Amino acid sequence: MTTAPWRSRPLTILGSTGSIGKNTLEVAKYLGIPIHTITGHSKVEILAEQVLAYRPKVVVASDPSAIPQLKHLLRNVPVVIEGGPQALVEAARHPDVGTVVTAVVGAAGLPATVAAVQAGKRVGIANKEPLVMAGGLIMAAAKLSGAEILPIDSEHSAIFQCLEGHRAHEVDHLVLTGSGGPFRTVHDLDSVTIEQALKHPTWSMGPKITIDSATLMNKSLEVIEARWLFGVEPERIRVIIHPQSVVHSMVVYRDGSVLAQLGLPDMKVPIQYALTWPEHTAGLTSAPDFTRLASLTFEEPDRVRFPSLDMAYAVARDGGLAPTVMNAANEVAVAAFLAGHGRFTDIFRTIDRALGHVSRVTDPTLEQIIAADAETRARLSA
Amino acid sequence: MTTAPWRSRPLTILGSTGSIGKNTLEVAKYLGIPIHTITGHSKVEILAEQVLAYRPKVVVASDPSAIPQLKHLLRNVPVVIEGGPQALVEAARHPDVGTVVTAVVGAAGLPATVAAVQAGKRVGIANKEPLVMAGGLIMAAAKLSGAEILPIDSEHSAIFQCLEGHRAHEVDHLVLTGSGGPFRTVHDLDSVTIEQALKHPTWSMGPKITIDSATLMNKSLEVIEARWLFGVEPERIRVIIHPQSVVHSMVVYRDGSVLAQLGLPDMKVPIQYALTWPEHTAGLTSAPDFTRLASLTFEEPDRVRFPSLDMAYAVARDGGLAPTVMNAANEVAVAAFLAGHGRFTDIFRTIDRALGHVSRVTDPTLEQIIAADAETRARLSA
Repeated sequence: MTTAPWRSRPLTILGSTGSIGKNTLEVAKYLGIPIHTITGHSKVEILAEQVLAYRPKVVVASDPSAIPQLKHLLRNVPVVIEGGPQALVEAARHPDVGTVVTAVVGAAGLPATVAAVQAGKRVGIANKEPLVMAGGLIMAAAKLSGAEILPIDSEHSAIFQCLEGHRAHEVDHLVLTGSGGPFRTVHDLDSVTIEQALKHPTWSMGPKITIDSATLMNKSLEVIEARWLFGVEPERIRVIIHPQSVVHSMVVYRDGSVLAQLGLPDMKVPIQYALTWPEHTAGLTSAPDFTRLASLTFEEPDRVRFPSLDMAYAVARDGGLAPTVMNAANEVAVAAFLAGHGRFTDIFRTIDRALGHVSRVTDPTLEQIIAADAETRARLSA
Repeated sequence: MTTAPWRSRPLTILGSTGSIGKNTLEVAKYLGIPIHTITGHSKVEILAEQVLAYRPKVVVASDPSAIPQLKHLLRNVPVVIEGGPQALVEAARHPDVGTVVTAVVGAAGLPATVAAVQAGKRVGIANKEPLVMAGGLIMAAAKLSGAEILPIDSEHSAIFQCLEGHRAHEVDHLVLTGSGGPFRTVHDLDSVTIEQALKHPTWSMGPKITIDSATLMNKSLEVIEARWLFGVEPERIRVIIHPQSVVHSMVVYRDGSVLAQLGLPDMKVPIQYALTWPEHTAGLTSAPDFTRLASLTFEEPDRVRFPSLDMAYAVARDGGLAPTVMNAANEVAVAAFLAGHGRFTDIFRTIDRALGHVSRVTDPTLEQIIAADAETRARLSA
């Protein structure tokens, strides 16, 4: 066991100060995997603490204005300190690094994700937006470079595990499960508050993804993510609400056999599997005791109260720049809602409005994708 | 797809007149797999109908006294007709045959199962008693001959599917689910009737296995079967009652990740997968629609009302001839109950009494196993 190849593969965590980043550091420490680089945006106190606790070789703050304070906090510590968005890209493709976990929030992670994939790393994907925006490009680049794309989203890790040993033509459809979020049974979404939206019933996550769970936009992004990760057309990806979050997702095979992955709602499980794949090894999380669980239920999502789902399927069908525009509009709208501007349901309205301005481009380049992302943000902020 | 290797592999079905045998014929016809041999014991009318419908090359009645009538029924049909238990063994190892499905009821299937395994066939195991009696020998023989052992029990097919791509050292424990049978909530088992015992809540099966489900002896035999099929010690096999029979069984990995296989209670799914493995192909069964299912629940089995479970774990620990004695006593006791002799709970008493007479033999030979089986039957019938 001590000679498992993953144990000696240095790890870079893009976005170490968030929920996934912190969990990844804990898991890596437990497994004895050396940390090469950690990166954050501007939370320098957390970065400095993590440097002292986990002893990476390099620490990056993607916000350059945070560098002086980070340098001050780490003035006597033997660690390389880098700053700016380009340092994120360099960290992602550093030749000494074996595995890169992408846990940056939102579209900001795109260039570094592409760099890690082009460099042929094992890439643990917790940052779904790059795949939503540029999934076709990223999967093609992985084929060329030999990069191993391992999903860290619990749903996609579940599907990945249920597909092991099998190929796409054996699959009838994928079932993405979702808790339904805090508003599953709330009828008037116009009047819900930020505090209510931030109370996820089963998962503890960062604020952006928690709001995305409340709008079901997270599930919508996951449909597009799954499409690229597993090479399955959106029509063959079904979303089912499962309020207990025990079944993390399922694969329905053509013979009527269904494989499901289950577990406690703890991101350490998919994080660890991305690091140790193809091997399940002892970890920090125990399995659920099924005899102590509530009964497991499944229901259809409400596509009227949550128009995000139908938007995602339409956008997935349209392809081109549509997913990028949808994602950028969602990021802007969620930030506005979290800042106290507008109502919860304005998020849907903002996305719908933005989708009226999608330039028709088939197979867009990375530059066109980045430009469309920037244009959408500029238009919505104007 | 038309060139899949399984499609041209001639199939022999040992025990074609029972529930599994009939389902196997239907599945094979749907898949276009040629039938080489079908066998039954004495139900010659069914055998003759099956010959006309499925056109095998050979038909065997293991009861020699049934041959004249079978010959008469098939007097103008071009099919080879054989009789007697040795014909079963010859059918299992015939050089033209690629796959053998063992669906004989009880210990009678042992010699033919061993013959198929020694001949290096793909062997679909629906007849669990041979593995209970001689699992160590059978698995060792499969290693030598290269036989592929594919489980057809729905629980073991589930575990097999959940283990694909993984090895035993990654497993924390196996979870065998069971419906709990018709008496899950019945407190006084002394007074239940044959008719009540034959009413299985979720599965439609033959009488012997249906009674075994009512006593939980079926689950007990499955623990021992799983131990051999998957090389996992009995202490790491847990039985959980799941009345809906949707989750067919689960594997709990060491990292807390759980894989489960789910589906409608239809034996065609595991039968087909044993025939087409490693590929899931379109079949006769659809997947469950999760949004229309009742909620799924799990509970501990009642080890006081159903002492069969603890007997099985003790017998599995003891090894040697103990599983053979337990199995033989169970077959005798079930037959007696079905014939109207004694009460339902006498089945437990008969097994318990028989287990007082186990000769201490470690690593018994096949001859010793067959002798212990016969001695137990003789002692209980005396």
